[in-house]
This record gives sequence, structure tokens and C-alpha cells, in this order.
Amino acid sequence: MATSTRVGVWLVGACGGVGTCVALGVAALQQGLMDETGLTTAVAPLNQLPLNSYDQIVIGGHEIRQGRFLDTVREFQQRSGIFSQQLVDACSEKLAEFSDNIRPGTLINTGETIQKLCDWEAVPTKESPGEAIARLKEDLALFQMKYQLSQVVVVNVCSTEPPTPLSEVHSSLAKLQQAWQYKSEPSPLPASSLYAWAAVESGMPYVNFTPSLGSQFPAFTELMKQHNGIIAGQDGKTGETLLKSAIAPMFLARNLKIHSWVGHNIFGNRDGLVLNDPRNKESKVKTKDKIISSVVGYKPQTHVSIEYIESLDDWKTAWNHIHFSGFLGVKMVMQLIWQGCDSILAAPLVIDLARLVLHAQREGETGVLRYLAPYFKAPLSEDDHDFFHQVTELHKHYFGASA
Amino acid sequence: MATSTRVGVWLVGACGGVGTCVALGVAALQQGLMDETGLTTAVAPLNQLPLNSYDQIVIGGHEIRQGRFLDTVREFQQRSGIFSQQLVDACSEKLAEFSDNIRPGTLINTGETIQKLCDWEAVPTKESPGEAIARLKEDLALFQMKYQLSQVVVVNVCSTEPPTPLSEVHSSLAKLQQAWQYKSEPSPLPASSLYAWAAVESGMPYVNFTPSLGSQFPAFTELMKQHNGIIAGQDGKTGETLLKSAIAPMFLARNLKIHSWVGHNIFGNRDGLVLNDPRNKESKVKTKDKIISSVVGYKPQTHVSIEYIESLDDWKTAWNHIHFSGFLGVKMVMQLIWQGCDSILAAPLVIDLARLVLHAQREGETGVLRYLAPYFKAPLSEDDHDFFHQVTELHKHYFGASA
Amino acid sequence: MATSTRVGVWLVGACGGVGTCVALGVAALQQGLMDETGLTTAVAPLNQLPLNSYDQIVIGGHEIRQGRFLDTVREFQQRSGIFSQQLVDACSEKLAEFSDNIRPGTLINTGETIQKLCDWEAVPTKESPGEAIARLKEDLALFQMKYQLSQVVVVNVCSTEPPTPLSEVHSSLAKLQQAWQYKSEPSPLPASSLYAWAAVESGMPYVNFTPSLGSQFPAFTELMKQHNGIIAGQDGKTGETLLKSAIAPMFLARNLKIHSWVGHNIFGNRDGLVLNDPRNKESKVKTKDKIISSVVGYKPQTHVSIEYIESLDDWKTAWNHIHFSGFLGVKMVMQLIWQGCDSILAAPLVIDLARLVLHAQREGETGVLRYLAPYFKAPLSEDDHDFFHQVTELHKHYFGASA
Amino acid sequence: MATSTRVGVWLVGACGGVGTCVALGVAALQQGLMDETGLTTAVAPLNQLPLNSYDQIVIGGHEIRQGRFLDTVREFQQRSGIFSQQLVDACSEKLAEFSDNIRPGTLINTGETIQKLCDWEAVPTKESPGEAIARLKEDLALFQMKYQLSQVVVVNVCSTEPPTPLSEVHSSLAKLQQAWQYKSEPSPLPASSLYAWAAVESGMPYVNFTPSLGSQFPAFTELMKQHNGIIAGQDGKTGETLLKSAIAPMFLARNLKIHSWVGHNIFGNRDGLVLNDPRNKESKVKTKDKIISSVVGYKPQTHVSIEYIESLDDWKTAWNHIHFSGFLGVKMVMQLIWQGCDSILAAPLVIDLARLVLHAQREGETGVLRYLAPYFKAPLSEDDHDFFHQVTELHKHYFGASA
Repeated sequence: MATSTRVGVWLVGACGGVGTCVALGVAALQQGLMDETGLTTAVAPLNQLPLNSYDQIVIGGHEIRQGRFLDTVREFQQRSGIFSQQLVDACSEKLAEFSDNIRPGTLINTGETIQKLCDWEAVPTKESPGEAIARLKEDLALFQMKYQLSQVVVVNVCSTEPPTPLSEVHSSLAKLQQAWQYKSEPSPLPASSLYAWAAVESGMPYVNFTPSLGSQFPAFTELMKQHNGIIAGQDGKTGETLLKSAIAPMFLARNLKIHSWVGHNIFGNRDGLVLNDPRNKESKVKTKDKIISSVVGYKPQTHVSIEYIESLDDWKTAWNHIHFSGFLGVKMVMQLIWQGCDSILAAPLVIDLARLVLHAQREGETGVLRYLAPYFKAPLSEDDHDFFHQVTELHKHYFGASA
Repeated sequence: MATSTRVGVWLVGACGGVGTCVALGVAALQQGLMDETGLTTAVAPLNQLPLNSYDQIVIGGHEIRQGRFLDTVREFQQRSGIFSQQLVDACSEKLAEFSDNIRPGTLINTGETIQKLCDWEAVPTKESPGEAIARLKEDLALFQMKYQLSQVVVVNVCSTEPPTPLSEVHSSLAKLQQAWQYKSEPSPLPASSLYAWAAVESGMPYVNFTPSLGSQFPAFTELMKQHNGIIAGQDGKTGETLLKSAIAPMFLARNLKIHSWVGHNIFGNRDGLVLNDPRNKESKVKTKDKIISSVVGYKPQTHVSIEYIESLDDWKTAWNHIHFSGFLGVKMVMQLIWQGCDSILAAPLVIDLARLVLHAQREGETGVLRYLAPYFKAPLSEDDHDFFHQVTELHKHYFGASA
Repeated sequence: MATSTRVGVWLVGACGGVGTCVALGVAALQQGLMDETGLTTAVAPLNQLPLNSYDQIVIGGHEIRQGRFLDTVREFQQRSGIFSQQLVDACSEKLAEFSDNIRPGTLINTGETIQKLCDWEAVPTKESPGEAIARLKEDLALFQMKYQLSQVVVVNVCSTEPPTPLSEVHSSLAKLQQAWQYKSEPSPLPASSLYAWAAVESGMPYVNFTPSLGSQFPAFTELMKQHNGIIAGQDGKTGETLLKSAIAPMFLARNLKIHSWVGHNIFGNRDGLVLNDPRNKESKVKTKDKIISSVVGYKPQTHVSIEYIESLDDWKTAWNHIHFSGFLGVKMVMQLIWQGCDSILAAPLVIDLARLVLHAQREGETGVLRYLAPYFKAPLSEDDHDFFHQVTELHKHYFGASA
Repeated sequence: MATSTRVGVWLVGACGGVGTCVALGVAALQQGLMDETGLTTAVAPLNQLPLNSYDQIVIGGHEIRQGRFLDTVREFQQRSGIFSQQLVDACSEKLAEFSDNIRPGTLINTGETIQKLCDWEAVPTKESPGEAIARLKEDLALFQMKYQLSQVVVVNVCSTEPPTPLSEVHSSLAKLQQAWQYKSEPSPLPASSLYAWAAVESGMPYVNFTPSLGSQFPAFTELMKQHNGIIAGQDGKTGETLLKSAIAPMFLARNLKIHSWVGHNIFGNRDGLVLNDPRNKESKVKTKDKIISSVVGYKPQTHVSIEYIESLDDWKTAWNHIHFSGFLGVKMVMQLIWQGCDSILAAPLVIDLARLVLHAQREGETGVLRYLAPYFKAPLSEDDHDFFHQVTELHKHYFGASA
């Protein structure tokens, strides 16, 4: 049984690849134009939960580039060769409505590469962190009011920011707020954290689908407690890392010794362009690289590279070369080639997470939703990267040991 | 704590690839020349079980080709480029001892291709099933007596037989025994079943590491009951099928719809030569092909081919092409290339199974050991092919729900 | 300088994958909607030849299935995810015009699988070979007259027929014609040969882009002489075989010894469905399998398989595994994975061949155009399968040794 | 007919992977223990040239690490799993003799990573360029005298040096010699150039099988003229780049438009360790990256990475992903996976080059041997990277247009 009122899904980075596919996907699902392939909440046992129906969802979001969903959907058609014209035509009205809910985001500490992408004059260039938070909160409140939404979840689906080095100033709420009152530049927090801040102060759950800082510093924990905040994250596990967390357990179970695991990723969408900046890439490689040793319990040599290859557009291609020994010291090789459309893999997980997090809020849960680990490359407060352990724990959370 | 007396591991097809690697492996482990990579009983949690130590193991077996372990080990060195000279030299004495325990096997219903490989004059060419069973039992008894073995386990590691069509005659013990008393040719049972018969009548557990018939017909169930038989099987899950049973669950968990799963296997050892005979291949492809649909719950198009490519020797190479849809109907591809030394992958599992089955016998277990499912492509009496479910069940069997 | 009048390209199997892409391609080129990628006659040195311009080309053809180009183009959009809606819309008028030139073909000796695909009532089911030839010639004559075409070339782009065993009756024109006058069934000739016959008797060049029999029997040579026929063939070299003929020379040049070359092809279009019938497949595997030994001068073990995997549609995927030795006997591996849209690879070569063959006819050439070898898997009267030798010879034909 | 006296092959970096395989290979060939697989001079048409027989070859060389060929051969056995014990035993006497001819090399400007590998006390640490050249020349003279060698060729098979920026001082012989007379540190020349210098002043041909500077600066051209020097180079084309230069011409011939060509190389031998230093890697990536655009005539996006993955030892594994468009703008993919033993691929080419260069010297040739282009990634004074054009030119050089 689904609940009866409307809910909002607020996408930070709305018109990026993931945001666009979420918007198109929700529009298509609302009209019954597509089956639920890719949605984990559509199959047993999660399909038994009282989650919001697709009809109840309204999409809005922050963006730093001009443009509407229909434009970015067309870009997918032209550059990546996906989405039939019929599907797009049938969804254009809904996409137009969702597009009207897009508001200017913030560029604070997003790094040069992301800042260069900004072509929307409405995005403020001079703004203190406090001003930004206030403005973002107002956008969220207006969205909620406009549609009389019972709940809103904020999901970060932006391109990856450069890492933010943590220091004394991040250690408590008091120090942090003091810091930005007296000196607005440079901001101690990046955009991802300001969006998270605005969400939590608005009583809305925040999901970090990226490796950006978001809620991950001590002062934020204080903020969470003050506001009964709900967070989930971080960095959506969509392709190559999903494979790693599913295959590494097999090597462990068979006691095959992994010597080296090389992952070479190439892709050409805007996220790839941003990751081509070594500062932004640093955040990403970090979350991709620790899975293997965490699962097998020792440290094979690992190498992860990510390269921007423009012609591939959204088609992430990953080559994985796993060199291992079997019995009597014989060395063997397994290779994986993954050719997936990155945004298409991510979008249904965003919808799943939105539905699961809204459900958690209705159930009165607060804090970090650790059981959502199977959806993330770097699950918050969780160290077990074995995908099947994670799924088992998720099911246990909802349905107990019998799951 | 390990038990204190010696036990026998009787290999049917002793000097084949798997048998040779088992013999060399046990010799190397007994002398501490190799670590335990590849042995699942060497890592947590199975390493907590009171299993036989490697020192306690004595190897013997049946063969239809002339030759001794040192010869077949040298063949591996020359053809597949594995095993250092130092390792082989250090193990030659023990291999010689094990070789002295090899006795002539039976060719009954093994098919033309296997029969052509027979070059040992001592292997009987005219023998009724009853005579064969009696002879095989005598070999087992003499082996046990020679070394004063507390237990012996019989493991079938032969090349794959052609399928045996089951009929009325296999439906009860009475009919079967009557059949071969009156008419010895053609035998209603293939060699694999005669070895199983001999094992069970000798009070020894039987492990079927091949897709051959073995114990899988109703009359054998009666025999099992009469003798409190113990069996495990069938068809060791070593490479490509292991991958399938580990990766298919990931597609299910993410609700990605598999359209087709193509597996193309090439290899060039004697097993490959035998499988090149379409009659023998039929048995094999059957056990390899049903994994996927069993895990995901629907029937994608599947194709499995196995080709004998002489130059590859023991290096099984498998290309897997998985075509699937994600959200919004977008089709994607995952490809796997597995380059493994087949016998080296199989051998430690044979040692694991021998240790686990001997332990079961000491614990007073009888019948089919269903919990050994993770070791087999076609687990007896088990339908769940999800590798991680299988491993969870195995651990639960030994250590309860906390495992 | 191009010639000034219009010419016809008559496609046998017009609405198949290749035919459809030829029609769409010509329509697009005529309107300047597409660049000339894929057309070998568009780049140096072949672009210097006085070939027909795209504007001069009119498309017609024989078919055994109902339907028009716009339908089959839409099928490509839906099933294989290619061709933008804009392109298709812009070409629809021209495609409609080409579609009006499609006439019922013949089913004689095309095999059961192809016959089952026939859903056009206008295709005769009872017809002697002589009647069929007469009817096909009439279609060609009407086409030529309708557009006042200066020349017409007939190109066979049908699915592959089962092999036709040659016998006494094929050895001379007299015997053959006598045979079908007295007894119309079974026909001594398959459809591909009847189309070729009609073309040659109509004074039109015939290009066999398939492995079907076509012109390859002694009686046809007589017919060619009587009519100054022009033929080119056979079996377009589009993907995997192209790779083989380009890469094998490298192994020869470096004196690397190839042990085995395994090629596993999967695809799901209508051609694939037809090749799924073992009788039709037999014709195909034959032309794919002899390239390697022809180039390197010895016989490595080769294996070619072709499997129909429905979900792939026109996306032919080929895995090639090449096992070879280098210096000091060290064995190494090269693997190739080719993911190409088969019809898209073939279509520009059909346009190239049509233009080159029409040019040859204007130059007064007759007989087999041997120099067109680089376009074919099984070049008529040519044994050198080295792709680069073939290209060198082609250029020499047109431009002499300086090329 | 081969000439009758003995010749020397002097390996700079003698006990590296390539040098070791050359020494073992020559020893094996001299005893008829191995066939000539991998040697391009062993097959038509080059086998018709009057080249030195293997029996006439004596091996010597410079090294900066202690050790003898038998040790490095054993390292190959243990780490890369190649070379049977029988082969090594049979060659040990000859390897011992060759090892006695190894002399201390020079570390000048080889970079920190290479310098750290030096463990031989006899290698001078303080030496001016002039002193080094004099010492190296003396080593060469003593080697020639000891064996009464009619000719000696010097081949650089060292690990790659960091790039040397060229300046005014390299522009003439006078400036250069003046420079090092007055100030010995830092040397204006790296080791590779000092070896080349010593060779040319000794009247010996110099082959640069590496991307290091060697002879590539204006002053060296003067030196060449003074001494009638002979050089060939540079950077042996053994694996991935060979593939590129063989496959890119196919894309050109078919007018398929390459969008991107990504090459990801992993390997773990000492050369790989040296290339792991970004300064040394810079020299290498440069020669690997320009092949494609040179062949196809436009600039696709290319990416070449080389990573040191220790467990792979000498097994260079290269994944190549080629993204291209065919007709009507359809994007397709070709992928190559190359698993080759790098030193084994290189060694026979070194022997080929030594034989061909010694032949050239006997023929009275001087200067850069441009026709040896097919052996090099960055052929000196040659811009055509099409492998088949290069081979055609090579054959023409020796046998004229009829080749």
C-alpha cells in the first residue's frame, strides 16, 4: 500500500546526465511508458515496502547551467544514441513542468572546471556560505509550498568537486559558523556541504550520490543532531565498482590470491570532463580504490584510472584486469569489460534511494542510514564492501533474519 | 585439532589433469613447499573445522592409461608451462609412492573417445558390470589395508562420459542387478556409476566431480540406504560456471534484465579432447547452461560452446558476453574473459571436498551432502545456484546462523 | 569528372539489412545529409576515378517479404538503436520512391528458413527456373525503361542460401538448359544464380555480395562469354574477416607462429536467423575459414562459429582469440573484440562496388573483375587474402605501379 | 652464402630482459635447440640475404647491475614462467662465456630510478663524458681483439632514460666537446648518446632499440660524417605499437573514421619499473602516441598509458579501445587485448637488426639506415608509420620493385 500525498525529489545538478535520466524516467514511469527495469525497489523483497508511487513524485532542483530537461534529453539522443523519439515526445510535457522547478545553484568551492561550465547569469558569483544556505533553503521551501509536498528529499547528483581538506574550523558548529560570519572567502565548505546544510535545516533528508564532501565532517554531525537530520551516501555504486564488490567476494570464497587489480575507465560525458581535472579526479579515485582490499583482507596492487574520451559520451567503458594465483602458485587472469551508460545505471538508484529515504523519514528514522550501503561506493559508517553481505543486511533491516 | 590416523583419497582418473594436480599438491603441502592458496578449507571459517591434515592423506586411484604421476606432471611442465623444476624434483619421491597405488580402471560405457585413450593392457576389455564392481572393491580394500587407513573417500575426476539414458531398468536395485546377471552387454550403467557402486558397498563416501551419471538414478538411492552411503556432487564448479553463479546475482539485485548470456569456452587438454566428441559434450553443456535462469528467475537466451583447441593445453579460456537492459530500455554489455588453468582450479576443491566428506563420515552423516553445493555446477538436490547463497548455507551448516 | 546520365542499382534482397542501409545511405548522400565515411571510393586514390555521382543513382530491387524501406529503416531504429529521427524524416520521400521499384523475387532453392520468411503473396510459389529468369529480366527492363537508365548493376545482398552441390548438369549451358526445360523441380540452380543469369542476359553487371552460389559454376562461364557478362564477388568482407586479412599479414611479417585462431561470432538480425539454419551456415563458415592459412602459408587450427543471439539485432559481435608462439617457444595471446553494425559496414561497400563495376562496364571490361578482391571474403579467381596486397593490386589496376 | 668470420653483438644493458633473451636465444640457436620463430630474417624474402650465421655471433655488453646471464635467465623462469629447465641447462656453458664479456657501463644522465638499480661497484660514479667515452671504446676494442671479430655492432637495449632537452650546446661538435672539457657536470649528453659516440668513433654501427636520445642531435650528425658512422633506430616496435601500425591502415583503407584510440599498457619487469618514473615514461609515451594520426591523416583523440604492475613481470598486457564511425554516422568499437612477453618479442628483432646492420656495413653503407623502419616505433628520418608500407619499402631496398 502506498501513501497518498505528493512528495518532492530535489536534484542538485538537475540537468546533468543523472538528473536528466531521473526526470525522464519519472515522467515515463508516471505514464506507464516503461517497465521498471533497473529499479531495485521494483523487485522482491523491496517491492513489498510501502514506498511512494511514481505518480506521487514531483521533480525540482538546482543547476548552474542554463537549460531545460528537454534540451539535455535531446543531447543524450544525439550524442549517446539512446531514447526513442516516441518516448521523448510523450514525456515532453512533464519534462517541461519539471524544468520550471529548476533554480540557480551555488558555485562555492566547486573548482575551476565546474565553474567554467556555468553559463547561467542567475547563478550568484559573490555570495557568502551563509547567504547561499539561506537562498537554497528558500528555493526548497517554495518548491514544497507550490506543490503542497508532504516530504522533500534532496539528492546530490552533481559532478565531483575537488577534495576539501578538513581542519580545525570543521570540528564544531560554533567554529564553522563563526568562520563564515567574519570572512566569507574562501568558504570553509564546498557547494555539496551547503546543499546538505540547507536540506537538514529544512527538515529534508539529504542523499549524497557523489564522492564530494557533503555531510562528512564533524560539525555537520552536530547540525544533524540539532535538526534530526537524515542522510545517506556516498558516491553511487553503479558500474565498475559494483562489479568489484560483487566479484572480489568470489576470489575470497575460493581462496584465490589476487596479485593486482587494474581498472581503466574511459568515458566522455560532462562528469568525465570534470573528472579530467586532476583535482576533481582525486576525490573519485579514492572511493573507487579501496573496495578490493576491504573485501579480501589483504592489499593487492590496485590501479584505477579514469580518462575523458570525448567520443564515448555517456558510454562508460571499463577494462578490468585481475591477476591472481591459484593452487601450486599458478598465475591466472580474469578480464572484465563493462560498456554501460553511466547515467542510465545511476538514475534508477536515485529513484530507489529517494523512495527508501522518504520511507525512512516517515518511519521516524534519523541519522545516517547505514543499511543503504549496497547503493554506495563509500557507504557512510560501513566497512564491509562485499556487495552480497550489504544486500543481505539491507533485507534484514526491513524484513528481519528470515529475509 | 586434527584427527590422528591416516586417510585415503582414491582418485578415479588418477593421472588425468585434475588427479595429477591433486597428487602433486598433496605431495607439496606435506612438505610445506607451497602455501594453501586455492584451498577453501584453509581460510576462515572452514579452517576451524577438525579436518584431516595434509600429512594424513595417502593418494591412490584407478586409471585406464599407463603412466605415473611424474610423467603427467612433466607433461604439464612441457605443454602448459607450469610447475618449477625445483617443485617437481622435491615431490618426485612422494609422487612415485602415490603412483604405486594406481590400479586399472574400467572402460564400461565410457564411449569411444575415452576408450581410444586406453593404452594399458591391464585394463580389462571384457568384464560384466558385476565383475567390474567386485574388482574395483578389491582394489579399494587392498589400498585401505596396505596403509591401515581409517577412512577412504572415492572421488571421480575422470573425463566426462556420454549421457546414459535412464529407463525402467534403473528404477530399482532388483531390476538392475537382475539385468546384469543375465546379460552383461551393453551394461545398463556407465563406469562412473560402477565406481560409485564399489565405493558405497565398501562403506566409502563417493564424490562426483564430473557431470557423468555416477549415483544419479533411483536404484542407487536404494543402494545408498542399504549401506548408509555418503555422496556429494556433481560436476566441480571451477571456472566459467563459478563466475556465472557469482555474477548473475548482481544482475538480479540491481534488476538489470539479461537478454542473452553467451559463453564460449576453448581449451586443449585431454578433457577437452574427450568433450570434442559431441556425445560426451552433451553431458557437460547441460550442467553449464541452466545456472543463469535458475538465479535470475527468467530465461534469457543462453549459449554455451566448448571447443577443443589443442595449443591451449590446460589453459581454459572462456569468453562471456552478457547483453542486458537497464533503465529506460537502454541496452548494455558486459564481457568476461577467463584464462585459467583448469586442473589447477579443480585440484584444491577436490582436496577440500575429500577433507569435508571424510569429516562428515566421522560425524555420522549419511546420504547426499546438500550443503556442499558451492563446489558443484549441478548440486545434487539443490536448486539455488546463487554462489553467495550457497556459501552462506555451507557456513550455516557448520557454524549456525551466526556464520 | 562524373558521367552525366542516371544509373540503376538493383538490390536482390532489397529490404534486408544491407539493402535498407544502401537505400537510406543513397537517399542521405543525395541530399548532402551525411558525410562519406565508410565509402572507399570517397578517399584517395579511388576518389580520382570518374565514377557516378550519388545523384545519378536510382534504387530498385527484388524482395520476397512485403514491406517498404521506411518500415525496415524504422525496424533498425527500434531494434538496433541507430538512425536519428531527423535523418529518417528527411529521407522518407526518397525512400518511398525507391520502394515503388521493389518487385517480387524468387524463392527457388533458397531453403526452408528463407522460404518461411516470405510473406508476400505476389512472390510466385510454382515457377520453373526458365520462367523465373524471364520474369526477373522483365522487372529489370521495366526499371531501366522507367528511369531511362544508361546502365543498371544487379547486386545480391540476400541472406545466405544453403550450398548447392554441383554435378554434371552444371558443367555446360546446354545440359543445364535442357535440364530445366524437361523438369522444373527440383531446380538445378538456386535463386542467387537465377538473378545472376537474368542480369547477364540483360547486359547488366552482377555483383555477388553473399557466399551463395551465384555465378560460380562452369555453365555460367559459357553464359558470360555469350553475353560479355561482368561479375564481381563474392561475399562482402565487412567485419571479422576483414580483420583477419589485415592482421594475419603482421604475424607473417614478424615470423610469429600462429597455433590457433578462434573466431566466435554472435548477432541477431534476419541474416543471423537464416544462418542459424545449419544448411545455410555451411556456406558461410566455408568462406570465413580459409583466410588465415592462405596468408601465413601453413595451417593453424582454426575455428569459426556463428550463433544467432536475438537481442543483438544488427550488432555483430566477434571475439577472436589468436594463440601464437614467439622466440624461444614462448606462447602468447592476442584477442580482438569487434562490435560492429553489420549492415552499416556492408552498405557503403555495396555502393562502392556498384560505382566501380558501372565504371568498368563503361570502360568496356568483361568477365570477372579480379582486382575487386579487397571487397570480398572469397574473391573470385584470387588466392591472395592479404588485405594490403589486395589494396595495392586494386590501386595498381587503376593507377599503375606508381600507386 | 654466409660470410666466414666471427662478429660481435655488443648489448648496452646486457642483462636486462631483452639482452638476456638475446643471449639465451643466440646460445640456443647456435646449438640448434630452437627453431627460428620470431626472427624476420629467417623467412622469405630476407632469408635470401648473405647474413651472418648464428654460429658467427659472439655476445658482450655493458651493464650497470651485477650479475650474469644465467641469473637473469633464472629470474625469467621464476617470475614469468618461461624457459624450460632443459633449455637453460643446455645453454648454461655458452651463457657463462657471454657473461665474461660484460663490462661496467655508465650512469651519466640516466635518471634517479635507473641509478638506484645500480649495484655494481665497478661502475664509475664520477666520470666526465669524455672519460666515459674513452673507457667504453676501450671495452669495445678489447672485445673485438679477444675474439678477432671482423665487425661489432652496438645495440642499445637499456631501460628508457628521461628526455634530454636539446640546446645550443648540442648544435655542433665543437660546442659540445668544448662544453664537456670545461665542465663535466651536468653532462650535456645522456648515457645512450655516450654509447653511440663510442660506437661511431670505434667504426661500429649503433642501433638504438630504445626511445632514449642516442644519436638524435645535430652534433652527432657531424660525428657520423667524420667517421662514416652507421645508425639505425629508434625504439623497437614489438607489441602494441606494432598492432597499431598494422591495424590503423585497415581503418584508412575502409574510410572508417577513428574517433578515439585508447591504449592502456600494464607490465611489471625492470623496464616497467623504470617507466613508472614519470620522467622516464615521458620519453616512451611520446614515441607510442603519434602512430595513428600519422597513418590516417587526421588526429583522433589518443591516450596511451603505461603502468607498472609488478605481478605481471615480463607479461606486457595492452588493452586497446578503438571507437570509430562507419556509414551514416553509426559508432562502433573494436578492442584488442595483447598478452605478450615483451623481451621475447624484442630479442629476435635485435638479432635481426644486428645481422642486417652488419650486412649493411659490409656493403659499404653509411648514415641512417632508413629502410629499417618496420623495426622501430619512431623510425629515424621516416614519417610513414603504415607497417605494410614499411615492409614493402624494406623488401624493395634489398630486392627491387619485384619484391
